[in-house]
Amino acid sequence: MNPTLEIFSQGEEIVTGQTVDTNAAWLSQKAVACGFTVTRHTAVGDKLDDLIVLLQDISQRADCCICTGGLGPTSDDLTAEAVAYAFNIPLEFDEIAFEQISRFFAQRNRAMPESNRKQAMLPQGAERIDNEWGTAPGFSLTYGRCWFAFLPGVPLEMKHLFHDRILPKLSTRFLLQPGQLITIKTLGLGESAIQERINSIEIPAQVQLGFRAGADDVQTKLLFPFDYPET
Amino acid sequence: MNPTLEIFSQGEEIVTGQTVDTNAAWLSQKAVACGFTVTRHTAVGDKLDDLIVLLQDISQRADCCICTGGLGPTSDDLTAEAVAYAFNIPLEFDEIAFEQISRFFAQRNRAMPESNRKQAMLPQGAERIDNEWGTAPGFSLTYGRCWFAFLPGVPLEMKHLFHDRILPKLSTRFLLQPGQLITIKTLGLGESAIQERINSIEIPAQVQLGFRAGADDVQTKLLFPFDYPET
Repeated sequence: MNPTLEIFSQGEEIVTGQTVDTNAAWLSQKAVACGFTVTRHTAVGDKLDDLIVLLQDISQRADCCICTGGLGPTSDDLTAEAVAYAFNIPLEFDEIAFEQISRFFAQRNRAMPESNRKQAMLPQGAERIDNEWGTAPGFSLTYGRCWFAFLPGVPLEMKHLFHDRILPKLSTRFLLQPGQLITIKTLGLGESAIQERINSIEIPAQVQLGFRAGADDVQTKLLFPFDYPET
Repeated sequence: MNPTLEIFSQGEEIVTGQTVDTNAAWLSQKAVACGFTVTRHTAVGDKLDDLIVLLQDISQRADCCICTGGLGPTSDDLTAEAVAYAFNIPLEFDEIAFEQISRFFAQRNRAMPESNRKQAMLPQGAERIDNEWGTAPGFSLTYGRCWFAFLPGVPLEMKHLFHDRILPKLSTRFLLQPGQLITIKTLGLGESAIQERINSIEIPAQVQLGFRAGADDVQTKLLFPFDYPET
Protein backbone atom coordinates (compact mmCIF):
# COMPACT_ATOMS: atom_id res chain seq x y z
CA MET A 1 0.00 0.00 0.00
CA ASN A 2 1.31 3.42 -0.94
CA PRO A 3 1.18 6.10 1.75
CA THR A 4 -1.78 8.45 1.26
CA LEU A 5 -1.39 12.16 0.62
CA GLU A 6 -3.85 15.02 0.63
CA ILE A 7 -3.57 18.50 -0.83
CA PHE A 8 -4.93 21.35 1.24
CA SER A 9 -5.24 24.80 -0.34
CA GLN A 10 -6.11 27.88 1.63
CA GLY A 11 -7.41 31.12 0.25
CA GLU A 12 -10.58 33.07 -0.33
CA GLU A 13 -9.43 33.63 -3.94
CA ILE A 14 -9.58 29.87 -4.53
CA VAL A 15 -12.98 29.08 -2.99
CA THR A 16 -14.52 32.12 -4.71
CA GLY A 17 -13.09 30.98 -8.06
CA GLN A 18 -10.98 34.07 -8.75
CA THR A 19 -7.94 31.80 -8.95
CA VAL A 20 -7.83 28.33 -10.50
CA ASP A 21 -5.97 26.07 -8.08
CA THR A 22 -3.11 24.99 -10.35
CA ASN A 23 -0.92 24.30 -7.28
CA ALA A 24 -3.08 21.31 -6.34
CA ALA A 25 -2.69 19.62 -9.73
CA TRP A 26 1.04 20.35 -9.89
CA LEU A 27 1.68 18.97 -6.40
CA SER A 28 -0.49 15.90 -7.07
CA GLN A 29 1.48 14.97 -10.17
CA LYS A 30 4.72 15.24 -8.22
CA ALA A 31 3.30 13.21 -5.32
CA VAL A 32 2.00 10.43 -7.58
CA ALA A 33 5.37 10.28 -9.38
CA CYS A 34 7.03 9.85 -5.95
CA GLY A 35 4.79 6.89 -5.08
CA PHE A 36 2.00 8.42 -2.98
CA THR A 37 -1.67 7.66 -3.45
CA VAL A 38 -3.30 11.09 -3.56
CA THR A 39 -6.72 10.69 -1.97
CA ARG A 40 -8.18 14.16 -1.68
CA HIS A 41 -7.86 17.86 -2.51
CA THR A 42 -9.58 20.38 -0.28
CA ALA A 43 -9.70 24.16 -0.55
CA VAL A 44 -11.18 26.46 2.09
CA GLY A 45 -11.22 30.22 2.48
CA ASP A 46 -9.66 32.43 5.15
CA LYS A 47 -11.93 31.24 7.98
CA LEU A 48 -10.19 30.11 11.14
CA ASP A 49 -12.88 27.59 12.16
CA ASP A 50 -12.88 25.90 8.75
CA LEU A 51 -9.11 25.64 8.78
CA ILE A 52 -8.99 24.13 12.26
CA VAL A 53 -11.60 21.44 11.54
CA LEU A 54 -9.95 20.53 8.27
CA LEU A 55 -6.46 20.24 9.79
CA GLN A 56 -7.81 17.97 12.52
CA ASP A 57 -9.66 15.78 10.01
CA ILE A 58 -6.60 15.42 7.77
CA SER A 59 -4.37 14.58 10.74
CA GLN A 60 -6.50 11.47 11.30
CA ARG A 61 -7.02 10.52 7.68
CA ALA A 62 -3.80 10.92 5.66
CA ASP A 63 -0.15 9.93 6.00
CA CYS A 64 1.05 13.16 4.43
CA CYS A 65 -0.47 16.54 3.63
CA ILE A 66 0.94 19.33 1.51
CA CYS A 67 -0.68 22.67 2.35
CA THR A 68 -0.38 25.87 0.36
CA GLY A 69 -1.35 29.44 1.17
CA GLY A 70 -2.15 31.49 4.26
CA LEU A 71 1.46 32.22 5.28
CA GLY A 72 1.53 35.89 4.29
CA PRO A 73 1.87 38.93 6.58
CA THR A 74 -1.73 40.16 6.40
CA SER A 75 -4.70 39.62 8.68
CA ASP A 76 -6.34 37.12 6.31
CA ASP A 77 -3.33 34.77 6.45
CA LEU A 78 -4.29 32.37 9.20
CA THR A 79 -2.49 29.08 8.65
CA ALA A 80 -0.01 29.24 11.55
CA GLU A 81 -2.74 30.39 13.91
CA ALA A 82 -5.04 27.58 12.73
CA VAL A 83 -2.28 25.00 13.30
CA ALA A 84 -1.78 26.37 16.81
CA TYR A 85 -5.48 25.97 17.64
CA ALA A 86 -6.00 22.67 15.80
CA PHE A 87 -3.07 20.85 17.37
CA ASN A 88 -2.83 22.82 20.60
CA ILE A 89 0.73 24.02 19.96
CA PRO A 90 1.76 27.57 20.90
CA LEU A 91 3.31 29.87 18.30
CA GLU A 92 6.87 30.89 18.98
CA PHE A 93 9.04 33.69 17.61
CA ASP A 94 11.71 32.14 15.34
CA GLU A 95 14.78 34.41 15.32
CA ILE A 96 16.33 32.84 12.24
CA ALA A 97 13.08 33.19 10.29
CA PHE A 98 12.90 36.83 11.36
CA GLU A 99 16.47 37.46 10.21
CA GLN A 100 15.70 35.89 6.84
CA ILE A 101 12.63 38.07 6.41
CA SER A 102 14.55 41.19 7.45
CA ARG A 103 17.32 40.31 4.99
CA PHE A 104 14.76 39.88 2.20
CA PHE A 105 13.66 43.49 2.67
CA ALA A 106 17.19 44.85 3.27
CA GLN A 107 18.47 43.28 0.03
CA ARG A 108 15.71 45.11 -1.83
CA ASN A 109 16.37 48.41 -0.01
CA ARG A 110 12.89 48.39 1.46
CA ALA A 111 11.86 49.02 5.04
CA MET A 112 10.30 45.96 6.65
CA PRO A 113 6.74 46.69 7.81
CA GLU A 114 6.06 45.64 11.38
CA SER A 115 3.35 43.23 10.21
CA ASN A 116 5.94 40.94 8.59
CA ARG A 117 7.05 39.99 12.10
CA LYS A 118 3.96 37.75 12.15
CA GLN A 119 5.55 35.50 9.53
CA ALA A 120 8.30 34.58 11.99
CA MET A 121 5.81 33.14 14.47
CA LEU A 122 5.96 29.37 13.92
CA PRO A 123 4.34 26.50 15.83
CA GLN A 124 6.58 25.29 18.64
CA GLY A 125 8.61 22.26 17.58
CA ALA A 126 7.84 22.71 13.87
CA GLU A 127 10.72 22.48 11.43
CA ARG A 128 11.25 25.75 9.56
CA ILE A 129 11.40 25.52 5.77
CA ASP A 130 13.72 28.31 4.59
CA ASN A 131 12.32 30.43 1.75
CA GLU A 132 14.83 32.41 -0.32
CA TRP A 133 12.21 33.38 -2.90
CA GLY A 134 9.79 35.33 -0.71
CA THR A 135 9.12 36.50 2.84
CA ALA A 136 7.03 33.55 4.06
CA PRO A 137 8.99 30.70 5.64
CA GLY A 138 7.23 27.35 5.39
CA PHE A 139 7.20 24.80 8.17
CA SER A 140 6.58 21.11 8.71
CA LEU A 141 5.36 19.04 11.64
CA THR A 142 3.74 15.73 12.47
CA TYR A 143 0.36 15.52 14.15
CA GLY A 144 -1.76 12.40 14.51
CA ARG A 145 -0.74 10.03 11.74
CA CYS A 146 0.06 12.83 9.32
CA TRP A 147 3.22 14.68 8.35
CA PHE A 148 2.21 18.19 7.27
CA ALA A 149 4.24 20.55 5.10
CA PHE A 150 3.00 24.15 4.92
CA LEU A 151 4.14 26.11 1.88
CA PRO A 152 3.33 29.57 0.55
CA GLY A 153 0.62 29.75 -2.12
CA VAL A 154 2.57 31.86 -4.64
CA PRO A 155 3.31 29.20 -7.30
CA LEU A 156 6.95 30.19 -7.89
CA GLU A 157 7.81 30.04 -4.17
CA MET A 158 5.77 26.87 -3.66
CA LYS A 159 7.53 25.03 -6.50
CA HIS A 160 11.01 26.04 -5.33
CA LEU A 161 10.30 24.95 -1.77
CA PHE A 162 8.74 21.66 -2.86
CA HIS A 163 11.68 20.73 -5.08
CA ASP A 164 14.51 21.91 -2.86
CA ARG A 165 13.17 21.31 0.64
CA ILE A 166 10.24 18.84 0.60
CA LEU A 167 11.21 16.20 -1.97
CA PRO A 168 14.43 15.23 -0.12
CA LYS A 169 12.47 14.82 3.13
CA LEU A 170 9.73 12.66 1.56
CA SER A 171 12.06 9.88 0.49
CA THR A 172 13.54 9.54 3.99
CA ARG A 173 10.17 9.74 5.78
CA PHE A 174 8.08 7.41 3.63
CA LEU A 175 8.52 4.08 1.90
CA LEU A 176 7.80 5.23 -1.64
CA GLN A 177 7.26 2.72 -4.42
CA PRO A 178 5.82 4.45 -7.47
CA GLY A 179 3.50 2.42 -9.68
CA GLN A 180 3.37 2.59 -13.45
CA LEU A 181 0.55 4.24 -15.35
CA ILE A 182 -0.12 3.06 -18.90
CA THR A 183 -2.44 5.26 -20.98
CA ILE A 184 -3.98 3.95 -24.21
CA LYS A 185 -5.55 6.61 -26.43
CA THR A 186 -8.17 5.58 -28.98
CA LEU A 187 -10.15 7.45 -31.61
CA GLY A 188 -13.61 6.64 -32.96
CA LEU A 189 -14.96 4.55 -30.08
CA GLY A 190 -16.93 5.90 -27.11
CA GLU A 191 -15.83 4.99 -23.60
CA SER A 192 -18.81 2.69 -23.14
CA ALA A 193 -17.85 0.76 -26.30
CA ILE A 194 -14.27 0.43 -25.01
CA GLN A 195 -15.54 -0.72 -21.64
CA GLU A 196 -17.54 -3.49 -23.37
CA ARG A 197 -14.48 -4.76 -25.21
CA ILE A 198 -12.41 -4.70 -22.04
CA ASN A 199 -15.04 -6.70 -20.18
CA SER A 200 -13.88 -9.79 -22.08
CA ILE A 201 -10.29 -9.35 -20.81
CA GLU A 202 -9.46 -10.58 -17.34
CA ILE A 203 -7.72 -7.64 -15.61
CA PRO A 204 -5.96 -8.59 -12.35
CA ALA A 205 -7.56 -7.08 -9.24
CA GLN A 206 -4.44 -5.09 -8.27
CA VAL A 207 -4.45 -3.21 -11.59
CA GLN A 208 -6.63 -0.10 -11.44
CA LEU A 209 -8.68 0.61 -14.56
CA GLY A 210 -9.87 4.10 -15.49
CA PHE A 211 -11.30 5.98 -18.44
CA ARG A 212 -11.31 9.57 -19.53
CA ALA A 213 -13.40 10.86 -22.40
CA GLY A 214 -11.85 13.88 -24.11
CA ALA A 215 -13.28 16.05 -26.89
CA ASP A 216 -11.90 13.68 -29.57
CA ASP A 217 -10.20 10.69 -28.05
CA VAL A 218 -10.81 8.37 -25.12
CA GLN A 219 -8.01 7.51 -22.72
CA THR A 220 -8.01 4.10 -21.09
CA LYS A 221 -5.73 4.03 -18.08
CA LEU A 222 -4.15 1.05 -16.37
CA LEU A 223 -2.27 1.70 -13.14
CA PHE A 224 0.09 -1.13 -12.23
CA PRO A 225 1.41 -1.36 -8.66
CA PHE A 226 5.15 -1.19 -7.96
CA ASP A 227 5.46 -4.90 -7.27
CA TYR A 228 3.51 -6.10 -10.31
CA PRO A 229 5.48 -8.93 -11.96
CA GLU A 230 7.16 -7.94 -15.26
CA THR A 231 6.34 -11.16 -17.09
CA MET B 1 -26.32 35.20 6.13
CA ASN B 2 -25.86 33.87 2.60
CA PRO B 3 -26.58 30.19 2.06
CA THR B 4 -23.38 28.12 1.94
CA LEU B 5 -22.31 26.14 -1.09
CA GLU B 6 -19.64 23.52 -1.63
CA ILE B 7 -18.08 22.24 -4.82
CA PHE B 8 -17.45 18.52 -5.05
CA SER B 9 -15.37 17.17 -7.94
CA GLN B 10 -14.99 13.51 -8.65
CA GLY B 11 -12.33 11.87 -10.73
CA GLU B 12 -9.03 10.07 -10.50
CA GLU B 13 -7.67 12.47 -13.17
CA ILE B 14 -8.23 15.39 -10.79
CA VAL B 15 -6.72 13.94 -7.60
CA THR B 16 -3.72 12.65 -9.54
CA GLY B 17 -3.19 16.08 -11.10
CA GLN B 18 -3.58 15.03 -14.74
CA THR B 19 -6.43 17.54 -15.04
CA VAL B 20 -6.55 20.99 -13.44
CA ASP B 21 -10.01 21.39 -11.89
CA THR B 22 -11.19 24.43 -13.80
CA ASN B 23 -14.83 23.40 -13.22
CA ALA B 24 -14.52 24.20 -9.50
CA ALA B 25 -13.32 27.78 -10.12
CA TRP B 26 -15.93 28.39 -12.83
CA LEU B 27 -18.79 27.12 -10.67
CA SER B 28 -17.56 29.07 -7.64
CA GLN B 29 -17.54 32.34 -9.55
CA LYS B 30 -21.10 31.73 -10.71
CA ALA B 31 -22.23 30.75 -7.20
CA VAL B 32 -20.67 33.84 -5.58
CA ALA B 33 -22.27 36.05 -8.23
CA CYS B 34 -25.65 34.47 -7.35
CA GLY B 35 -25.23 35.28 -3.66
CA PHE B 36 -23.86 32.06 -2.14
CA THR B 37 -20.96 31.89 0.28
CA VAL B 38 -18.70 29.20 -1.17
CA THR B 39 -17.10 27.46 1.79
CA ARG B 40 -15.19 24.52 0.41
CA HIS B 41 -13.96 22.65 -2.68
CA THR B 42 -13.23 18.95 -2.40
CA ALA B 43 -11.97 16.53 -5.02
CA VAL B 44 -11.72 12.77 -4.55
CA GLY B 45 -10.91 9.93 -6.93
CA ASP B 46 -13.05 7.05 -8.13
CA LYS B 47 -13.24 5.32 -4.74
CA LEU B 48 -16.72 4.38 -3.54
CA ASP B 49 -15.91 4.66 0.19
CA ASP B 50 -14.40 8.14 -0.19
CA LEU B 51 -17.41 9.33 -2.17
CA ILE B 52 -19.91 8.01 0.37
CA VAL B 53 -18.20 9.61 3.38
CA LEU B 54 -17.84 12.91 1.57
CA LEU B 55 -21.49 13.02 0.46
CA GLN B 56 -22.63 12.33 4.01
CA ASP B 57 -20.35 15.03 5.43
CA ILE B 58 -21.51 17.63 2.91
CA SER B 59 -25.18 16.79 3.54
CA GLN B 60 -24.70 17.95 7.14
CA ARG B 61 -22.46 20.91 6.43
CA ALA B 62 -23.67 22.88 3.41
CA ASP B 63 -26.96 24.31 2.13
CA CYS B 64 -26.11 23.52 -1.47
CA CYS B 65 -23.57 21.35 -3.25
CA ILE B 66 -22.69 21.28 -6.93
CA CYS B 67 -21.02 18.01 -7.89
CA THR B 68 -19.22 17.26 -11.14
CA GLY B 69 -18.00 14.01 -12.65
CA GLY B 70 -18.62 10.32 -12.21
CA LEU B 71 -21.79 10.10 -14.32
CA GLY B 72 -20.28 8.29 -17.32
CA PRO B 73 -21.06 4.76 -18.55
CA THR B 74 -17.85 3.07 -17.40
CA SER B 75 -17.00 1.05 -14.30
CA ASP B 76 -15.03 3.94 -12.72
CA ASP B 77 -18.08 6.26 -12.79
CA LEU B 78 -19.56 5.75 -9.36
CA THR B 79 -21.52 8.86 -8.39
CA ALA B 80 -25.06 7.46 -8.62
CA GLU B 81 -23.99 4.31 -6.77
CA ALA B 82 -22.31 6.41 -4.06
CA VAL B 83 -25.46 8.52 -3.63
CA ALA B 84 -27.49 5.33 -3.27
CA TYR B 85 -25.23 4.04 -0.48
CA ALA B 86 -24.64 7.39 1.23
CA PHE B 87 -28.30 8.35 1.49
CA ASN B 88 -29.83 4.86 1.49
CA ILE B 89 -31.88 5.47 -1.67
CA PRO B 90 -32.27 2.69 -4.27
CA LEU B 91 -31.33 3.32 -7.90
CA GLU B 92 -34.21 3.13 -10.35
CA PHE B 93 -34.35 2.75 -14.12
CA ASP B 94 -35.51 6.08 -15.62
CA GLU B 95 -37.28 5.38 -18.93
CA ILE B 96 -37.11 8.97 -20.15
CA ALA B 97 -33.39 9.19 -19.41
CA PHE B 98 -32.89 5.93 -21.30
CA GLU B 99 -34.81 7.24 -24.30
CA GLN B 100 -32.69 10.41 -24.31
CA ILE B 101 -29.47 8.38 -24.22
CA SER B 102 -30.75 6.07 -26.99
CA ARG B 103 -31.70 9.09 -29.09
CA PHE B 104 -28.23 10.61 -28.59
CA PHE B 105 -26.68 7.52 -30.22
CA ALA B 106 -29.39 7.16 -32.89
CA GLN B 107 -28.93 10.76 -34.02
CA ARG B 108 -25.23 10.05 -34.55
CA ASN B 109 -25.94 6.74 -36.32
CA ARG B 110 -24.10 4.80 -33.65
CA ALA B 111 -25.18 1.65 -31.88
CA MET B 112 -25.73 2.22 -28.16
CA PRO B 113 -23.46 -0.03 -26.09
CA GLU B 114 -25.27 -1.95 -23.37
CA SER B 115 -23.14 -0.22 -20.69
CA ASN B 116 -24.82 3.13 -21.35
CA ARG B 117 -27.95 1.68 -19.77
CA LYS B 118 -26.18 2.30 -16.43
CA GLN B 119 -26.51 6.07 -16.99
CA ALA B 120 -30.30 5.79 -16.85
CA MET B 121 -30.17 4.38 -13.30
CA LEU B 122 -31.00 7.37 -11.06
CA PRO B 123 -31.61 7.58 -7.30
CA GLN B 124 -35.30 7.08 -6.50
CA GLY B 125 -37.06 10.42 -6.07
CA ALA B 126 -34.22 12.44 -7.63
CA GLU B 127 -35.10 15.03 -10.22
CA ARG B 128 -33.55 14.23 -13.60
CA ILE B 129 -31.53 17.02 -15.25
CA ASP B 130 -31.89 16.55 -19.00
CA ASN B 131 -28.62 16.66 -20.94
CA GLU B 132 -28.82 17.41 -24.66
CA TRP B 133 -25.06 17.81 -24.98
CA GLY B 134 -23.93 14.33 -23.93
CA THR B 135 -25.13 10.92 -22.74
CA ALA B 136 -25.02 11.55 -18.98
CA PRO B 137 -28.22 12.91 -17.45
CA GLY B 138 -27.61 14.90 -14.29
CA PHE B 139 -29.88 14.73 -11.25
CA SER B 140 -30.70 16.70 -8.13
CA LEU B 141 -31.99 15.77 -4.70
CA THR B 142 -32.12 17.01 -1.13
CA TYR B 143 -30.54 15.09 1.71
CA GLY B 144 -29.94 16.39 5.23
CA ARG B 145 -29.77 20.17 5.01
CA CYS B 146 -28.26 20.13 1.54
CA TRP B 147 -29.65 20.39 -1.98
CA PHE B 148 -27.29 18.47 -4.28
CA ALA B 149 -26.98 18.90 -8.03
CA PHE B 150 -24.95 16.23 -9.86
CA LEU B 151 -23.54 17.29 -13.22
CA PRO B 152 -21.21 15.64 -15.72
CA GLY B 153 -17.53 16.60 -15.48
CA VAL B 154 -17.02 17.41 -19.17
CA PRO B 155 -16.77 21.23 -18.99
CA LEU B 156 -18.97 21.94 -22.02
CA GLU B 157 -21.82 19.74 -20.74
CA MET B 158 -21.40 21.01 -17.17
CA LYS B 159 -21.61 24.66 -18.23
CA HIS B 160 -24.70 24.13 -20.38
CA LEU B 161 -26.50 22.23 -17.63
CA PHE B 162 -25.55 24.78 -14.98
CA HIS B 163 -26.79 27.73 -17.04
CA ASP B 164 -29.94 26.19 -18.45
CA ARG B 165 -31.08 23.84 -15.68
CA ILE B 166 -29.46 24.75 -12.36
CA LEU B 167 -29.46 28.56 -12.29
CA PRO B 168 -33.28 28.83 -12.63
CA LYS B 169 -33.73 26.37 -9.74
CA LEU B 170 -31.30 28.15 -7.41
CA SER B 171 -33.23 31.40 -7.33
CA THR B 172 -36.47 29.63 -6.38
CA ARG B 173 -34.85 27.38 -3.75
CA PHE B 174 -32.63 29.86 -1.95
CA LEU B 175 -32.87 33.42 -0.72
CA LEU B 176 -29.99 34.87 -2.69
CA GLN B 177 -28.66 38.33 -1.93
CA PRO B 178 -25.33 38.85 -3.68
CA GLY B 179 -22.82 41.11 -1.96
CA GLN B 180 -20.51 43.52 -3.71
CA LEU B 181 -16.79 42.91 -4.07
CA ILE B 182 -14.55 45.95 -4.48
CA THR B 183 -10.97 45.25 -5.58
CA ILE B 184 -8.28 47.93 -5.26
CA LYS B 185 -5.07 47.23 -7.18
CA THR B 186 -1.85 48.94 -6.11
CA LEU B 187 1.71 48.93 -7.43
CA GLY B 188 4.93 49.47 -5.50
CA LEU B 189 3.73 48.55 -1.99
CA GLY B 190 3.91 45.08 -0.45
CA GLU B 191 0.77 43.62 1.13
CA SER B 192 2.20 44.06 4.62
CA ALA B 193 2.75 47.79 3.95
CA ILE B 194 -0.83 48.10 2.70
CA GLN B 195 -2.12 46.23 5.74
CA GLU B 196 -0.35 48.77 8.00
CA ARG B 197 -1.99 51.71 6.26
CA ILE B 198 -5.37 50.04 6.44
CA ASN B 199 -4.96 49.40 10.17
CA SER B 200 -5.60 53.10 10.75
CA ILE B 201 -8.99 52.92 8.96
CA GLU B 202 -11.97 51.61 10.88
CA ILE B 203 -13.50 48.92 8.65
CA PRO B 204 -16.98 47.81 9.77
CA ALA B 205 -17.15 44.23 11.07
CA GLN B 206 -19.56 43.09 8.36
CA VAL B 207 -17.14 44.06 5.58
CA GLN B 208 -14.71 41.26 4.79
CA LEU B 209 -11.14 42.34 4.07
CA GLY B 210 -8.72 40.30 1.97
CA PHE B 211 -5.41 40.65 0.18
CA ARG B 212 -3.79 38.94 -2.73
CA ALA B 213 -0.18 39.44 -3.72
CA GLY B 214 0.42 38.98 -7.45
CA ALA B 215 3.71 39.01 -9.36
CA ASP B 216 3.57 42.81 -9.77
CA ASP B 217 0.55 44.28 -8.03
CA VAL B 218 -1.29 43.69 -4.77
CA GLN B 219 -5.07 43.39 -4.71
CA THR B 220 -6.93 44.61 -1.65
CA LYS B 221 -10.45 43.22 -1.54
CA LEU B 222 -13.46 44.52 0.34
CA LEU B 223 -16.59 42.36 0.28
CA PHE B 224 -19.71 44.34 1.25
CA PRO B 225 -22.84 42.41 2.27
CA PHE B 226 -26.07 42.82 0.30
CA ASP B 227 -27.72 44.96 2.97
CA TYR B 228 -24.80 47.32 3.53
CA PRO B 229 -26.13 50.89 3.55
CA GLU B 230 -25.27 52.93 0.44
CA THR B 231 -24.45 56.16 2.26
